[in-house]
Amino acid sequence: MTTTIATPPPTINPKLIAPFVNAVRSVFRSMVNVQTTINRPHLKCEPCPAHDVSGIIGFSGETSGSVVVSFQMAAAEKLASAFAGTAITSDSPDFADAIGELANMIAGSAKKDLGGLANISVPSVIIGRNHQLARLSDVPCVVVPCSTPVGDFCVEVNIKMNNVPTSAHEVPQ
Amino acid sequence: MTTTIATPPPTINPKLIAPFVNAVRSVFRSMVNVQTTINRPHLKCEPCPAHDVSGIIGFSGETSGSVVVSFQMAAAEKLASAFAGTAITSDSPDFADAIGELANMIAGSAKKDLGGLANISVPSVIIGRNHQLARLSDVPCVVVPCSTPVGDFCVEVNIKMNNVPTSAHEVPQ
Repeated sequence: MTTTIATPPPTINPKLIAPFVNAVRSVFRSMVNVQTTINRPHLKCEPCPAHDVSGIIGFSGETSGSVVVSFQMAAAEKLASAFAGTAITSDSPDFADAIGELANMIAGSAKKDLGGLANISVPSVIIGRNHQLARLSDVPCVVVPCSTPVGDFCVEVNIKMNNVPTSAHEVPQ
Repeated sequence: MTTTIATPPPTINPKLIAPFVNAVRSVFRSMVNVQTTINRPHLKCEPCPAHDVSGIIGFSGETSGSVVVSFQMAAAEKLASAFAGTAITSDSPDFADAIGELANMIAGSAKKDLGGLANISVPSVIIGRNHQLARLSDVPCVVVPCSTPVGDFCVEVNIKMNNVPTSAHEVPQ
């Protein structure tokens, strides 16, 4: 009997996503003092949703890819203000730093849980109404939608483990 | 005699920028078959210029930060088409991959010249008319404006060498 191994459709690997869910809960509770509800993660679909503000962190090493924390503008201003402890609007020089630091804390916390030797880059921050984060074809992308009392945001986890089989690529039993 | 060390204003470190200038020339000549004119690099100023399409690569390790290749939409479509060898518009699924791969080739080529142990992330691609790449306060950012016969683009080099003195941080003699 021979077994034909077809390329399985991408699935969500809980081991890759759980560290980010935990990081979001922890960072927003301790640093922003906001209760966050994590909604059901889903694979990124087309057309990609649009955002106003995004903090992007690159991963390289045993975990490679990128993680993006994306906000609508009103939520970004309120959450950045809560994080900084003072009112910050999008035209303040501190606004991008606050968004970048939130993304950095989430990625840094998740990195510890992911294990392995990975490096994270300093954040890049994009500001522009209705921009889209294009989905690249060779890395699966999972969107984790998050709700807070002051507005919604999402975390896009666009990473893969290198040299380690993940459930996203295992042959179904 | 005591010497007071004041924080010097940021300056452009040619050792960090030359590898990117060379990489842009080489990648666009060999892979896009387009002659590129590199204009005078300058420190990023406020307000930041707006772009339509950006490919972002994160650096980590001995060189950390990010590098962004940003295009106006018409130039992005023409250069992505020349790179792919077939007409690509911004609504094609191949568009983001082409822009990401161009950014990846520039960063990868520059990384070799920079020396040291650095890792680069997979690219993130942002599509959105008039988005801005916010300047973070703790990493100097140099803009390298580039012209081609089919439109202009720029490379934003937002990196620093870790544990290595750079001219941007040396005390003036």
